[in-house]
Amino acid sequence: MEAPARTLGVLAVDMMSQPCRALVLLDALSGGGLVERKTVLIHKAQHLSEEERARNPIGKLPYLELSDPAGERVLTESHAIARYLAAASGGRVPRHLYPTGDALACARVDALLDWQHTNLRQGAAKLVFAEVIGPRRGLAVPPAIVEQARSTLNAALRAMGETHLAGGRREWLGGLADASFADVSALCELDQLRTLGGAYEALVAGPHPVVAAWAERTRRRLEPHYSRATDMLRRVERRASSSASRL
Amino acid sequence: MEAPARTLGVLAVDMMSQPCRALVLLDALSGGGLVERKTVLIHKAQHLSEEERARNPIGKLPYLELSDPAGERVLTESHAIARYLAAASGGRVPRHLYPTGDALACARVDALLDWQHTNLRQGAAKLVFAEVIGPRRGLAVPPAIVEQARSTLNAALRAMGETHLAGGRREWLGGLADASFADVSALCELDQLRTLGGAYEALVAGPHPVVAAWAERTRRRLEPHYSRATDMLRRVERRASSSASRL
Repeated sequence: MEAPARTLGVLAVDMMSQPCRALVLLDALSGGGLVERKTVLIHKAQHLSEEERARNPIGKLPYLELSDPAGERVLTESHAIARYLAAASGGRVPRHLYPTGDALACARVDALLDWQHTNLRQGAAKLVFAEVIGPRRGLAVPPAIVEQARSTLNAALRAMGETHLAGGRREWLGGLADASFADVSALCELDQLRTLGGAYEALVAGPHPVVAAWAERTRRRLEPHYSRATDMLRRVERRASSSASRL
Repeated sequence: MEAPARTLGVLAVDMMSQPCRALVLLDALSGGGLVERKTVLIHKAQHLSEEERARNPIGKLPYLELSDPAGERVLTESHAIARYLAAASGGRVPRHLYPTGDALACARVDALLDWQHTNLRQGAAKLVFAEVIGPRRGLAVPPAIVEQARSTLNAALRAMGETHLAGGRREWLGGLADASFADVSALCELDQLRTLGGAYEALVAGPHPVVAAWAERTRRRLEPHYSRATDMLRRVERRASSSASRL
């Protein structure tokens, strides 16, 4: 009997965080067991505790606590972790998600991931901070900042639809043959807008039907893992919708 | 006589753009000839011309027009291009810049590069846009946006000094053995602050001496290529300082 494949480390996540969900999905889509999972709750400030700060000074999730460290014990940044898991797992990550060993194919996925960091994420994550997380922490976010996040998000969704999905003539981002980790990461980024109570329809589905159709297609492609990874998010979404409907 | 090694494509750049300078430096530090170079001037809106948009619909610099395209003809995003050049150049990119073939060592550089995109760049590039580029285009940037860019930049510089440089106990970002492409990219990001006329001292050198010392060390490490790649920037900096001194 073969020994079970060993994990590459312990992945610290909060399932309410989009880059955390993207990595949990990557693991599940790879058959599971690439990493062990441990939960660190952001809303309880566990990531800022003394113990967590000693482990991960940058104080952000996700991070991977490596089984075999060389230098620092943790690796941060979800895209860097995804690339590492694909390269170090001996082929367990499906090639369509990240095509290890083909420099140009990898670069196509990398370019989409980098674009997301400086475009889509600057809209979506900042808007969720401005409208949900900031107010919950008692921070009043200036209207100019909220407006900028909305406008960045809208420009990013337009570029996604018109360029990365070629106006709907492409099934997956960048015209790749199957969903890549760039689709997984972008979908998780958009999903967080569901915590805004109706905003997903107003910000994404209405004005950007090509993106909304891609998002539905990607969700289906990632099942049954998608539903499991977004279970907590959907509970928060239902709460947000029901409080919006009481307004 | 050996045929000269062929280039991997034509790199479209504007030497006033930080990610463009970072890639030109990567090529020079690799002995030159990884790419041919063509200039597209952003201040003349050449990147938005019909011809350029047909080639590169995303409308941003730098991009690499590939010698051997598979799918799209261009590859965008400076970090993705750097990684591609390192992987596809047959070992011409020095290993200390990007350690191809070692998954964890690559991931350490990737994590630093990703961190820059969502932290350092959100401060530095946005501040230069707010204070130099926006006003030149007749855009009034709201004070809350300028304030946010300053505060993001300051937090990123603090994290660079305290974490990535361990309070000055590390010579290079992330504690790597030599300067990596993450040092090159971060240095270019900071250099653009020199167009603000005195702001480099006020924003970087004064409050963040560990970062300023690393920047000087990195500049020296990248000579003589650094001076060549930043020639145009220094001319603009001199103009900015002399107009600031007339105020």
